[in-house]
Amino acid sequence: MVDLAAAGSYSAVLMRNLSRPILTLTSDFGQADHYVAVMKAAILRHCPDAHLIDVTHQIAPQDILAASFTLAQTIAGFPAGTVHLAVVDPTVGTRRRILIVEANKQFIICPDNGLITWTWRCHRRCRAYAVTRRFSRVSSTFHGRDIMAPLAGMLAAGSSLADLARPIQQPRLLNIAPSRSRSGVILHIDHFGNATTNIPQSLLASRRVHNVRVHKLDLGPLRRTYADVAPSQPLALIGSSGLLEIAVRNASAARQLDLHIGDEVHLQWTAKR
Amino acid sequence: MVDLAAAGSYSAVLMRNLSRPILTLTSDFGQADHYVAVMKAAILRHCPDAHLIDVTHQIAPQDILAASFTLAQTIAGFPAGTVHLAVVDPTVGTRRRILIVEANKQFIICPDNGLITWTWRCHRRCRAYAVTRRFSRVSSTFHGRDIMAPLAGMLAAGSSLADLARPIQQPRLLNIAPSRSRSGVILHIDHFGNATTNIPQSLLASRRVHNVRVHKLDLGPLRRTYADVAPSQPLALIGSSGLLEIAVRNASAARQLDLHIGDEVHLQWTAKR
Amino acid sequence: MVDLAAAGSYSAVLMRNLSRPILTLTSDFGQADHYVAVMKAAILRHCPDAHLIDVTHQIAPQDILAASFTLAQTIAGFPAGTVHLAVVDPTVGTRRRILIVEANKQFIICPDNGLITWTWRCHRRCRAYAVTRRFSRVSSTFHGRDIMAPLAGMLAAGSSLADLARPIQQPRLLNIAPSRSRSGVILHIDHFGNATTNIPQSLLASRRVHNVRVHKLDLGPLRRTYADVAPSQPLALIGSSGLLEIAVRNASAARQLDLHIGDEVHLQWTAKR
Repeated sequence: MVDLAAAGSYSAVLMRNLSRPILTLTSDFGQADHYVAVMKAAILRHCPDAHLIDVTHQIAPQDILAASFTLAQTIAGFPAGTVHLAVVDPTVGTRRRILIVEANKQFIICPDNGLITWTWRCHRRCRAYAVTRRFSRVSSTFHGRDIMAPLAGMLAAGSSLADLARPIQQPRLLNIAPSRSRSGVILHIDHFGNATTNIPQSLLASRRVHNVRVHKLDLGPLRRTYADVAPSQPLALIGSSGLLEIAVRNASAARQLDLHIGDEVHLQWTAKR
Repeated sequence: MVDLAAAGSYSAVLMRNLSRPILTLTSDFGQADHYVAVMKAAILRHCPDAHLIDVTHQIAPQDILAASFTLAQTIAGFPAGTVHLAVVDPTVGTRRRILIVEANKQFIICPDNGLITWTWRCHRRCRAYAVTRRFSRVSSTFHGRDIMAPLAGMLAAGSSLADLARPIQQPRLLNIAPSRSRSGVILHIDHFGNATTNIPQSLLASRRVHNVRVHKLDLGPLRRTYADVAPSQPLALIGSSGLLEIAVRNASAARQLDLHIGDEVHLQWTAKR
Repeated sequence: MVDLAAAGSYSAVLMRNLSRPILTLTSDFGQADHYVAVMKAAILRHCPDAHLIDVTHQIAPQDILAASFTLAQTIAGFPAGTVHLAVVDPTVGTRRRILIVEANKQFIICPDNGLITWTWRCHRRCRAYAVTRRFSRVSSTFHGRDIMAPLAGMLAAGSSLADLARPIQQPRLLNIAPSRSRSGVILHIDHFGNATTNIPQSLLASRRVHNVRVHKLDLGPLRRTYADVAPSQPLALIGSSGLLEIAVRNASAARQLDLHIGDEVHLQWTAKR
């Protein structure tokens, strides 16, 4: 006779296996050293089945704003249940808290230094928790390996949030937010030299944009895609992240237009009728 | 009594799991942004079990020739059934087609902009298909995430080609091909500064090469391996890709000999008796 | 009636699956070419289930010392049974041996050119074997793909060491070792510009360090973490690898203090009472 309980447990194991937990990694560690690999070893110790996805380890050293933006963009692409480990941690070894944040049904583990800001501003259903779980053999210079990676592995393996952390009111936040007016700033410059601003598509839904100005250059109205202008010509469009982006077709807008993080961008618009 | 049908389905699941589909990624996206990670999320949505292998994301922006060469070299190393996603896509958002190509019993998904060229020229049993499947919520700037990654996931998960695409006669091809004469060109310069040409080993099988000349430098006959010359000395040999390669032992041939893509290489040979 | 033998084999398969073998990769191949991907394909042919972890492919070309250090640091973070593939191989195609080394219950596959040195000096229970297994279709320029990757896959899949290699007395070793005196040297400079020395924490356990001197700069006693000094100030501390490290808070010590591999570091200490 078939042992149904055993069959059930087979199924459970199989089901679990067929939906391996996804765990992403974002850091300023670079890819030249063993640091990322040993974080992954610490994760796998708690969750041998994790599907590990590197987002980037090329965040500029100590650049919390860049990590904040990249993390929020990443979350937008992943399914419920994903665990994101984000480590840019210049105050490692001090008393700064370590956070677990629930956002859009996903989990983020990061230091409480502002890294969560753009996620907190842009994603729904955000709740913050401070880690209470204690670990043994913790170094004073690498909490990514000794605390945050094990936590990420535990969460991915199904540990209860209540066993690891306690709710808090609000994490530390940087002074950036999505624009609600005719002005915005450049938040991020990508590998292609495209410059993403803090101006969300939703702000423009009921408006007709006549012109986008950056520095003293008028880019005209929003375009649909890069090939809507001639090669080497600049344009503004809504990028794949749902934010206003400044680009140059087949070239680097950052280089050609001398764009930098924090540069102001101005819109001229009228209400749609 | 054992339910054989159920046992069979266990086996099927297990077997499938034991041979996880392999899916490679090649792009010009760099590794600083979230772009590669969100493509992977889109793949995993359709094929949670995929074994994802990054080939490179360091193709120079918009360099279709480099991607074409790297893709073909990659295919040579992978088993039947592998799915390759290759995204260098400067005309994203225009009416250019998206291809599925079958080559050597593997599948490639890429834009129809010449990227498939070196694979088409060098691999057996190539057949091209244009994608007919429509997707919802497609951006006009990131078809890698919105169309090609989901297609790759579907193929890896076992979707039928006929449900996704229709046969076409021929893809768009760049004007490059394996050499059939005493002259060739440099196609690729690798991380070590070794320069690979379009001269295949098969062309040389029945010939004795007396001299390889690049610029005005005579490198003498083909060597077997780098250590056949003294350190810092130049040489020509058949590289691991089965193509004639110009190298400098323990140094960069590209830098030392000032080699560039497209430079001509000339052979002196006689027929083997 | 349940076929217990079959059930047993299900369990075995499941158990094996739940503890997928971990296999790390370290090389000087860079990430711009197809070389790493085709090594992975060769591994997966023998061990389809391997969990592949890239340590780094940014070892400087032919830099055996750097690879040696990074490999040993990596081993320190991984569990028993892990297989490490390390390929920096300037004498590929000559008669240099290929090694399998057992260290701390893990396995390393690498060329016998000194790459194993820091592991051999710092890890316990090291035993060296020279590969005897012959492979067909071996190129003379890429033994990483043609010999070492298949070996790594075989070991990860459970092949017996005795079928692949024979014991040897000692591998080739570089002339570096952990310091046992008041002087040491800089062994490694990481992505952040932190400089790790060959001075182990264990040497300092019974001593009180009053001052660390590098070049003509006195850094004072050891600190606990980076934030123990003001931003932009230099310090010495025990890094996450258990070795004395020289850093500058929130900046690059290598750049700010002009540090290089091989630079001497001097300690002033007294015995702890």
